Amino acid sequence: MTAVPRLFSILRQGPYLIASVHTALDDSQLVRFQEDLVHRIGADRARGVVIDVAALDVLDSFGSRTLRDVAEMARLRGAVTVIVGIQPDVAFAMVELGMDTGSVLTALDLEEGLVELDRCVAAPPVVPT
Amino acid sequence: MTAVPRLFSILRQGPYLIASVHTALDDSQLVRFQEDLVHRIGADRARGVVIDVAALDVLDSFGSRTLRDVAEMARLRGAVTVIVGIQPDVAFAMVELGMDTGSVLTALDLEEGLVELDRCVAAPPVVPT
Repeated sequence: MTAVPRLFSILRQGPYLIASVHTALDDSQLVRFQEDLVHRIGADRARGVVIDVAALDVLDSFGSRTLRDVAEMARLRGAVTVIVGIQPDVAFAMVELGMDTGSVLTALDLEEGLVELDRCVAAPPVVPT
Repeated sequence: MTAVPRLFSILRQGPYLIASVHTALDDSQLVRFQEDLVHRIGADRARGVVIDVAALDVLDSFGSRTLRDVAEMARLRGAVTVIVGIQPDVAFAMVELGMDTGSVLTALDLEEGLVELDRCVAAPPVVPT
């Protein structure tokens, strides 16, 4: 019985989780990624998730759908998800193939993603009257 | 080997890119436009893109779809896109031919487009308490 090494990492940074995908994941790894992330949101009481896919130079329809599904699951668990680092060719393929990325938030890179999370997660300022 | 001159320009203005289409583009130029723009978003870390099509007096279904696709790719790369300068006849044709421009943002001209970008990109002001 050989354990397959994880091809992704999920790190905690303050109220956020940063999930990095290191290489193209096969379908079983994608499902494992999905499960791990959804569990970690609860365990770490995360308010937001950044999924960094900069290392991916291809993303098939299953991968694309899984990312969208993860974002939706995270939302149901109370966390906002931002996908960052989508490469030009991947963006091209996703649009050309008509993969519906729905209303998933995106940002250029990790830095912009964290800014976006801050913007989304922060409660709107309540001005006392 | 004669290099075909670019029939569009992509200029940077602060955090935005301003892409002007100078004349009706054929299909290969449209694809080149698409690729250049998506790459420039990353290279210039653009937060928004204005595509100025004021010089176009015709826009076929491929052109229309390409504009929509560019906007979606830009979004995947973390930039908001506003299309400006759609001429009356072009607007007429696009609607009459049932070209779905989806949820692409539009504005009357470059000036209004930049205002629209400011509105979309700017983080909501945080009121110190």
